[in-house]
Amino acid sequence: MVFEWFRRRSRQRKPAAVIGARAVVAHENRYDLGDLTPDTVSYLGQVAYFELAVFETLSRAVSESPDLSSKEGLSAVAGDALTKHHGVVAELRKLKVDPAIAMEPFAASIDRFKELTQGNDWLETLVSVYITGGFLDDFFQRIVGGLPRALAARVQALIEPDREAAIIVQQLQAAIDRQPAIASRLALFGRRLLGDALLLARNAIAGSGDKAHDEARMEPVFTDLIAAHSRRMDALGFTA
Amino acid sequence: MVFEWFRRRSRQRKPAAVIGARAVVAHENRYDLGDLTPDTVSYLGQVAYFELAVFETLSRAVSESPDLSSKEGLSAVAGDALTKHHGVVAELRKLKVDPAIAMEPFAASIDRFKELTQGNDWLETLVSVYITGGFLDDFFQRIVGGLPRALAARVQALIEPDREAAIIVQQLQAAIDRQPAIASRLALFGRRLLGDALLLARNAIAGSGDKAHDEARMEPVFTDLIAAHSRRMDALGFTA
Repeated sequence: MVFEWFRRRSRQRKPAAVIGARAVVAHENRYDLGDLTPDTVSYLGQVAYFELAVFETLSRAVSESPDLSSKEGLSAVAGDALTKHHGVVAELRKLKVDPAIAMEPFAASIDRFKELTQGNDWLETLVSVYITGGFLDDFFQRIVGGLPRALAARVQALIEPDREAAIIVQQLQAAIDRQPAIASRLALFGRRLLGDALLLARNAIAGSGDKAHDEARMEPVFTDLIAAHSRRMDALGFTA
Repeated sequence: MVFEWFRRRSRQRKPAAVIGARAVVAHENRYDLGDLTPDTVSYLGQVAYFELAVFETLSRAVSESPDLSSKEGLSAVAGDALTKHHGVVAELRKLKVDPAIAMEPFAASIDRFKELTQGNDWLETLVSVYITGGFLDDFFQRIVGGLPRALAARVQALIEPDREAAIIVQQLQAAIDRQPAIASRLALFGRRLLGDALLLARNAIAGSGDKAHDEARMEPVFTDLIAAHSRRMDALGFTA
């Protein structure tokens, strides 16, 4: 259903949207996810490991930066991912949970996700971090409904998606301006990433046993996530 | 002279010292370095780039960590290096200096230093970051005498050496406990690093033209730096 909606939507052209302007709505619990929200430790464990993976990908991009200005800019983005990771780890510690033990069950699938989505060069890596990092932060932020209220609010503030996205968008736009021919390859790569991101998100949900029913309940979340994804693609001048 | 002192000293065995307990003395300007302190922008540019290089080496170590607990611990150390980098970059921005331009003159020599000292495996990389990162932070902290006083104090607080050293020491000690045979190789590597660290420090000083005279004036700084280096080696049970 999501994919039908997505194909339909992608045919329309929209004006470039402002990234990061989207209101935070998940903690108002407008999604009725009930038991689909993973338990607190599982939730925090996977967010912590995901942010660590984003940090690792960004660190590699820092090292591979073609110039000092990019290196410096991306190091700030890497720092933001690390802040998210450490913030979530601090929440686990408050609960007297060893972060390594909480992250462990999600390490293999997130490592595989990182491998699949890392891209073949520096620019693809930037597209990936921007598109999948934004998507998953957005996802994790929207499913906090089942967490204790105060924790949910702290985590939401912490993992705000696209906080440093402007730095990546600026790097990509400069590269495309210099070499317009790369845009279509990067756009194609950006579109491909959505499938992987959706899959990781889908696997993060605690299933009720009735898959079709779970998917129907997640539909409004995914609809919002894909709309935000399209805005990210628009910001690069890409058709989602 | 430094090396003679160092050889002399290294023959004595000392009890393991507490790392990080050394008092911050440089801002009391007890070293009379005068014009050997580089100008403010050169100073900040090289510290910024050095911390970025330490961050890059640590990020690689995060990715290569053998388990999640090491990964998590080292990510905190990487975060500390990044905080130092961003703090110094913020000082450059306050001075309306483009950080990339300030760092540029030092990129080649620090990149080469990073290559020379990165080690052949994960444990050597940890030894290197601990030994050379500690040494150079210590060095940069001790030569702030020629900077504007308020800036000097901020930079000193920012680049405090060994703040996260306990995490690295703990990783190394655990590895040595598991496999005592690696200790001598790591100790040898740690001793080798001193030469590279001293060279980078020596090149960071603004020369007066009279090399022998400059070295004599730097002698008290290097003496203190090498004493701190020995304490770092001692903390690992290594003979400096």
